[in-house]
Amino acid sequence: MASTPQAAAAPTPALVFETLMAYQRSAALRAAIEIDLFQAIGEGPGDIASLAKHCSASERGVRILCDYLTIIGLLSKEGDRYHHTPTSAVFLDPRSPACLGATARFLGNPDLHEPYAHLADIVRKGHTVLPGQGTVEPENPIWVEFAHSMAPMMAPMATPLGSIVLDGHNGPVQVLDIAAGHGLFGIEVARQNPEAHITGLDWAPVLEVAHANAKKAGVADRYTKLPGSAFEVEYGGPYDVVLLTNFLHHFDPPTNVGLLKKVRAALKPGGRAAALEFVPNEDRVSPPMAASFSMTMLASTPSGDAYTFRELEAMYRQAGFGNVTGHPVTTGPHTVVVGHK
Amino acid sequence: MASTPQAAAAPTPALVFETLMAYQRSAALRAAIEIDLFQAIGEGPGDIASLAKHCSASERGVRILCDYLTIIGLLSKEGDRYHHTPTSAVFLDPRSPACLGATARFLGNPDLHEPYAHLADIVRKGHTVLPGQGTVEPENPIWVEFAHSMAPMMAPMATPLGSIVLDGHNGPVQVLDIAAGHGLFGIEVARQNPEAHITGLDWAPVLEVAHANAKKAGVADRYTKLPGSAFEVEYGGPYDVVLLTNFLHHFDPPTNVGLLKKVRAALKPGGRAAALEFVPNEDRVSPPMAASFSMTMLASTPSGDAYTFRELEAMYRQAGFGNVTGHPVTTGPHTVVVGHK
Repeated sequence: MASTPQAAAAPTPALVFETLMAYQRSAALRAAIEIDLFQAIGEGPGDIASLAKHCSASERGVRILCDYLTIIGLLSKEGDRYHHTPTSAVFLDPRSPACLGATARFLGNPDLHEPYAHLADIVRKGHTVLPGQGTVEPENPIWVEFAHSMAPMMAPMATPLGSIVLDGHNGPVQVLDIAAGHGLFGIEVARQNPEAHITGLDWAPVLEVAHANAKKAGVADRYTKLPGSAFEVEYGGPYDVVLLTNFLHHFDPPTNVGLLKKVRAALKPGGRAAALEFVPNEDRVSPPMAASFSMTMLASTPSGDAYTFRELEAMYRQAGFGNVTGHPVTTGPHTVVVGHK
Repeated sequence: MASTPQAAAAPTPALVFETLMAYQRSAALRAAIEIDLFQAIGEGPGDIASLAKHCSASERGVRILCDYLTIIGLLSKEGDRYHHTPTSAVFLDPRSPACLGATARFLGNPDLHEPYAHLADIVRKGHTVLPGQGTVEPENPIWVEFAHSMAPMMAPMATPLGSIVLDGHNGPVQVLDIAAGHGLFGIEVARQNPEAHITGLDWAPVLEVAHANAKKAGVADRYTKLPGSAFEVEYGGPYDVVLLTNFLHHFDPPTNVGLLKKVRAALKPGGRAAALEFVPNEDRVSPPMAASFSMTMLASTPSGDAYTFRELEAMYRQAGFGNVTGHPVTTGPHTVVVGHK
């Protein structure tokens, strides 16, 4: 569009309709994952009859779904046959190690979609209309779903996060993993440093998922469970590293400053607190994935946000940290922000 | 993206996440229309405090919503101020005659969104899971909403449709407008030909909307109401022209052939039946807006579809029509398909 002068001269209503109908995109992708369409596509030959048979679905439904996925760029079509695009082959075929299909369970959770039916009210009020504290309500069961479903999205960030927080440390390292979730980040630190000991903190049912993953990774003997709220439980320690992954965005700055003070108190001198966050640029509208995460926080929390680096740095400094550094992760939309005690 | 060789070489998961989160785009635009944000933007100066005041909304909510709309291309941002894009100025500011805001009421109707929560089931079964016949259930009240809300989307198509169906006829013309809805298409024919008489057919409560629009346009003395089902009511006639706007896509081909036979019987020799339709190319995946309309028909009807020209031509011919011609409308996503008796 940008390269077509006529398009700039005469705006069309296409973007308005596309946007009003965009909800169909999410539903179509969720449905395709649910009926196992992307495995069927990968196995070929990709004609409607074979796909419908693999998916135990109607030919009318499969044809219209495949055409729709082709229109939105998630399949390709040649004649009457459908094939993977490079994106769907890597990220949607269950046979691919990078398959993200499981994330649809969390990102498509009806409880998380519900607030968007009342978004005008939320914008008026300025906070979620979900009951209690929304997604940050104590013991909210969605975090068990998160732990089960979101590991494939977070996995590509684990290796760079591990090397950023270890920063070459080879000896014994005590690590507190706050809001451990699936546990992948702490587990990756334990993998990269065989003398690292991880304490995972989260709601007890969530920690069961993290602990199962630690067992699978062969590091359960260096993994301790600390169940409870990050705001209430005693951290123990002292620690060399505290991980705060996908956590600070749920709360307002004063709450985060209070939490970071508690984190700092549990660190050894010279210790580091490392947050994995969606960090938009100072303009707050780029890059798109990090910046648009604010909308999720508006709809689902009382006062969370996707904070800019300057805002996160200010919170760290108010909590007593020095030398705050940002490390964009090239394998995903996140940035690691490290504060030093 | 297409111009970046690296993007083609190494697929990223961005499109997968964008698609899973696309439902937020529809919700954000609906919320912005509901709180009157686009009028506030047009009036300026576009800072958060002024916008929040105009919209009786929270500053946090308005800031996050405006940033989000900027990310998806429906606002622009300079420093801390938000402005219209060319698209939002023309199609979203209520002060613009081409404003499409009202269409959000129909396109955002929760009853129409509900099936997408069960789209996998719909794909399996091959038809809507809405009660009865879905959106084509007799007397379904959504068509009153359609008549009230969708006129701004359909208005740009009315003038070209009128000139295609009149095709230079200046004398008296009898026109039957099947599924009249808002009535705009028949009314436009009456405007272009002062000797045209229009008979609007639709459910009685819908016809009230069409008749009110005919009054507003000053053509009520040439407008007759024919309430009922297009499949059951006697058409009267004979007619020179029968309009079938946004109607055939709701039904399967045998049903349409039956209807077209009934239409043909009500036409004078040499008369024309003109359907306004979303007509995808033979590949069924282009152009995007017409082709993706099949998804709406899958989710909301037992057996509707966006038919290709070849399919529509076959239905017309089976019903006895000859000389079937297609006329893409440059002012919208529709095509006028005319069959001659």
